[in-house]
Amino acid sequence: MNAAIDFYFDFSSPYSYIASEWIEALAARHGRTVNWKAILLGATFQAAELKSPVSYPLKREYSLHDFERSARFAGVPLKNPEKFPIPTQNAARVFWWLHDKRDATASHWARHCLRAYFARGVDLSDPDRLKELAAEFGLDPLQAEAVWSDAEWKARLKAANDAAIAAGVFGAPFFMIDNEPFWGNDRRAQIERWLEKGPF
Amino acid sequence: MNAAIDFYFDFSSPYSYIASEWIEALAARHGRTVNWKAILLGATFQAAELKSPVSYPLKREYSLHDFERSARFAGVPLKNPEKFPIPTQNAARVFWWLHDKRDATASHWARHCLRAYFARGVDLSDPDRLKELAAEFGLDPLQAEAVWSDAEWKARLKAANDAAIAAGVFGAPFFMIDNEPFWGNDRRAQIERWLEKGPF
Repeated sequence: MNAAIDFYFDFSSPYSYIASEWIEALAARHGRTVNWKAILLGATFQAAELKSPVSYPLKREYSLHDFERSARFAGVPLKNPEKFPIPTQNAARVFWWLHDKRDATASHWARHCLRAYFARGVDLSDPDRLKELAAEFGLDPLQAEAVWSDAEWKARLKAANDAAIAAGVFGAPFFMIDNEPFWGNDRRAQIERWLEKGPF
Repeated sequence: MNAAIDFYFDFSSPYSYIASEWIEALAARHGRTVNWKAILLGATFQAAELKSPVSYPLKREYSLHDFERSARFAGVPLKNPEKFPIPTQNAARVFWWLHDKRDATASHWARHCLRAYFARGVDLSDPDRLKELAAEFGLDPLQAEAVWSDAEWKARLKAANDAAIAAGVFGAPFFMIDNEPFWGNDRRAQIERWLEKGPF
């Protein structure tokens, strides 16, 4: 018991961002750690034949409203970015590079980028903006660019997507706790109950 | 203020069933009443280009697990019915007939049928089972059958679906409170906050 929580997220997912702001503290309160796992929702959507909630009529308008309302409810600053959703493979490849090279800072990079995109509107899909974020974070921006252009880290992200799909992940945020799957920022109360009292 | 809560549900929606078990008490605690509105998810799905969560790979298995887990979390008895999802227009037409003729019992009929299907596995799409449920409820089963075969009540249900879609409803359960939309059993905490403290 007290196994780590697997936390799958996508850099362009507002509900992932909201969850990223509470999962560490919640886990720590229950003696757990968090395995952050950057994925591309594009890959899991394809495997599950799904699409972004903002790509459907009626659901689009509601979802954009709910992103901001759910963030306010959680006490997390979020303003729907002008460009949304965006491709996030570059930020995700840097995440996996940090993860594999010097593990402790990968989740900080994730939070740095998620906050930049959702609280400040910084476009993570723009290489120049992402290099600026890398520099802010204390990375060499040219090294960051070299990482996201490198076949090795492209393959690493693809492997992470494949592993997520094999684990049953079809959306984000997605949590695996003691082999129990929880999908969505709105499963927070159930996750809390699980961590407090075990299976229900 | 203290306007009624519009509660859109489908007789084949497990999350609608769970919500149907808490919405009345929650509303009453805040001096609100509930306008129950039976709809067909088939109609709203078509308008929003969506499908049932159990019709997607990966998401299907998770959803079936989550239906039962979310019910346990809410303290509501639910066992996934063998036949799921099912067409529910007959139960819905009887709902609107009761609604328009003698309003107070329509929501009781809804809860009677939802519980029969999700707690006892009674197939609401089987006319004989539905006639038995009508008799249990104190209705003349032949009159119930006449209602669901009647063009007037077919048109009434279609009008209810059209009105729901016009109001932005794309799934169920769906709540409209002071013109604020909430989709899903998992928006319960946000609804509670809204009722307690108003807009956030």
